[in-house]
Amino acid sequence: MIKNVELSADGRAVIIVDQGLLPNSVEYIELRTAEEVYDAIYHLKVRGAPAIGICAGYGIYCSARAIEAETFAEFYAKFREQKEYINSARPTAVNLSWALNRMDNVAAACADKPRGQLLAALERECRAIHQEDITMCEAISENGLTVIKDGDGILTHCNAGPLATSRYGTALGPLLLGHERGMKLKVFADETRPLLQGARLTAYELDSAGVDVTLICDNMASIVMKNGWVQACFVGCDRVAANGDTANKIGTSGVAILAKHYGIPFYVLGPSSTIDLECATGADIPIELREPSEIREKFYLRPMAPKGVKCYNPAFDVTDHSLISAIITERGVLRPPFAESLAR
Amino acid sequence: MIKNVELSADGRAVIIVDQGLLPNSVEYIELRTAEEVYDAIYHLKVRGAPAIGICAGYGIYCSARAIEAETFAEFYAKFREQKEYINSARPTAVNLSWALNRMDNVAAACADKPRGQLLAALERECRAIHQEDITMCEAISENGLTVIKDGDGILTHCNAGPLATSRYGTALGPLLLGHERGMKLKVFADETRPLLQGARLTAYELDSAGVDVTLICDNMASIVMKNGWVQACFVGCDRVAANGDTANKIGTSGVAILAKHYGIPFYVLGPSSTIDLECATGADIPIELREPSEIREKFYLRPMAPKGVKCYNPAFDVTDHSLISAIITERGVLRPPFAESLAR
Repeated sequence: MIKNVELSADGRAVIIVDQGLLPNSVEYIELRTAEEVYDAIYHLKVRGAPAIGICAGYGIYCSARAIEAETFAEFYAKFREQKEYINSARPTAVNLSWALNRMDNVAAACADKPRGQLLAALERECRAIHQEDITMCEAISENGLTVIKDGDGILTHCNAGPLATSRYGTALGPLLLGHERGMKLKVFADETRPLLQGARLTAYELDSAGVDVTLICDNMASIVMKNGWVQACFVGCDRVAANGDTANKIGTSGVAILAKHYGIPFYVLGPSSTIDLECATGADIPIELREPSEIREKFYLRPMAPKGVKCYNPAFDVTDHSLISAIITERGVLRPPFAESLAR
Repeated sequence: MIKNVELSADGRAVIIVDQGLLPNSVEYIELRTAEEVYDAIYHLKVRGAPAIGICAGYGIYCSARAIEAETFAEFYAKFREQKEYINSARPTAVNLSWALNRMDNVAAACADKPRGQLLAALERECRAIHQEDITMCEAISENGLTVIKDGDGILTHCNAGPLATSRYGTALGPLLLGHERGMKLKVFADETRPLLQGARLTAYELDSAGVDVTLICDNMASIVMKNGWVQACFVGCDRVAANGDTANKIGTSGVAILAKHYGIPFYVLGPSSTIDLECATGADIPIELREPSEIREKFYLRPMAPKGVKCYNPAFDVTDHSLISAIITERGVLRPPFAESLAR
């Protein structure tokens, strides 16, 4: 099993697997400075809201250890500077600021402690963030299992598996746990453009675990649902507003609208640390805009998905006439009812 | 302007631009045999329902010229064999069989004519198919303009421009014609996985013509609509059933469902040759399944879209709470109303 985030034995570096290279190669890298942590988060070498939180916790601890300061005030000023810097790497997932704020609160509470005790408290806190995520993912997996049954087809978007979290994952947690218990689930994984987390990570994690997974392009979710192959949608979340509006990987809202259209339940799975009651609605959640080059020029390693993973690749789909406002031919603009207007 | 399909000066070859290489290189290839025509259609070197029909018409004419036969019966048997072979290249677009059937009817009507007259009749027919498409595209463009107004944002999927047809195109026709007439339209082009016709062809055609085009990944259509940037969706069609159910590039039905959700009109544009009254509903339309390698391994030339074309690349979107069946955390399965269940 790949370890996505952990603290090095000497406690001076966060060790992550570079998720940008998966599944073609498994390379671990060490992050020691705030700059290295920022870079890893911004470039999605570590990604997934809970994993970003875990990495940020370990990361600010490691960079704090390297701070040179005579007084707590001096230490804390530098600590806050590094914290704000790491926090600016990605705006949408609340887990990043949530984990950093936990670390900040611990640091602030140690103003009158010797440096050794301060660092020990920070280490305990970042290890606790990680440990709590493992416990939460197990509970989320159990809770998720209560809404599906043996034989169900599940559609998921992006990656909310072990790589995005700690153990099991959130959206993939019930699927991996159910598989361990002998349930036969059929999972459809959206490839998730532009960065292909679904193809590279979800298909890889499920395929490796022996789960029946079929990779599809994002625009194939409609036909897969229409075919009757999907009994539930499971997605992760980066931030949940107080009214339930949920920010998650681009394309998630489209999956939800399709699911509603086809009468399929749509479930959001995540740790309660992802719920941000400070945001009244989704309109208050900042949405990260990224580089055009990811769409225009991104050059993927070949292959783009696990070797031999099952794919469903229909070239066309059928749009129901009830969804069409008009059919425009050289003869004119045909309005519903089409059975009459087309025959004419 | 790139010419996508034409008959060579000596009338012995169809000349097409290899659309698989656009926009990185413009390479013309000559198709002389039924095998070469089949290959070009199957591998999407020529694509777009009307363009496939035009290419098949010219193609069966060129391959018919090369048939060696003593009698009409012998000629016609070989002609029919080549026709069925070309027709098997792609099943969904009705224009392929429609054009081939027109050529077949002309051949059959010349049973007692000398070979020279037979070939001349076939040449007239394939040139007529091409010429009629130009006329139809102009009329479709005019008709399409009647449902949009200056300043509108238009979302389109796949490519139904000049490369997919003859002049102007179907879905892109009104946009190019409106632009010529000074209308300011803002077009959003879905990149259209797996073969990226939207990124490679639509963005290229509109950008070259000076139309304001923004490239998005397929899964970004929902957020673009939610942002209020889209006043109409324009898509082409490969086959329209008698009840109006429409087969078009994979993902089209998803766009239509999103448009309905956001209250945006969804227009299908195509020549009347695309209407197949023999198909009662969409369930009668054969859907082509293609190779998994297109999703898993397809290796694109870099760049994947016109250099510098505008992109909109949000990393996340917000799913409205009304679309979510439950939010599952480590604490349990939270059901609507979320404002209450989340706060608890």
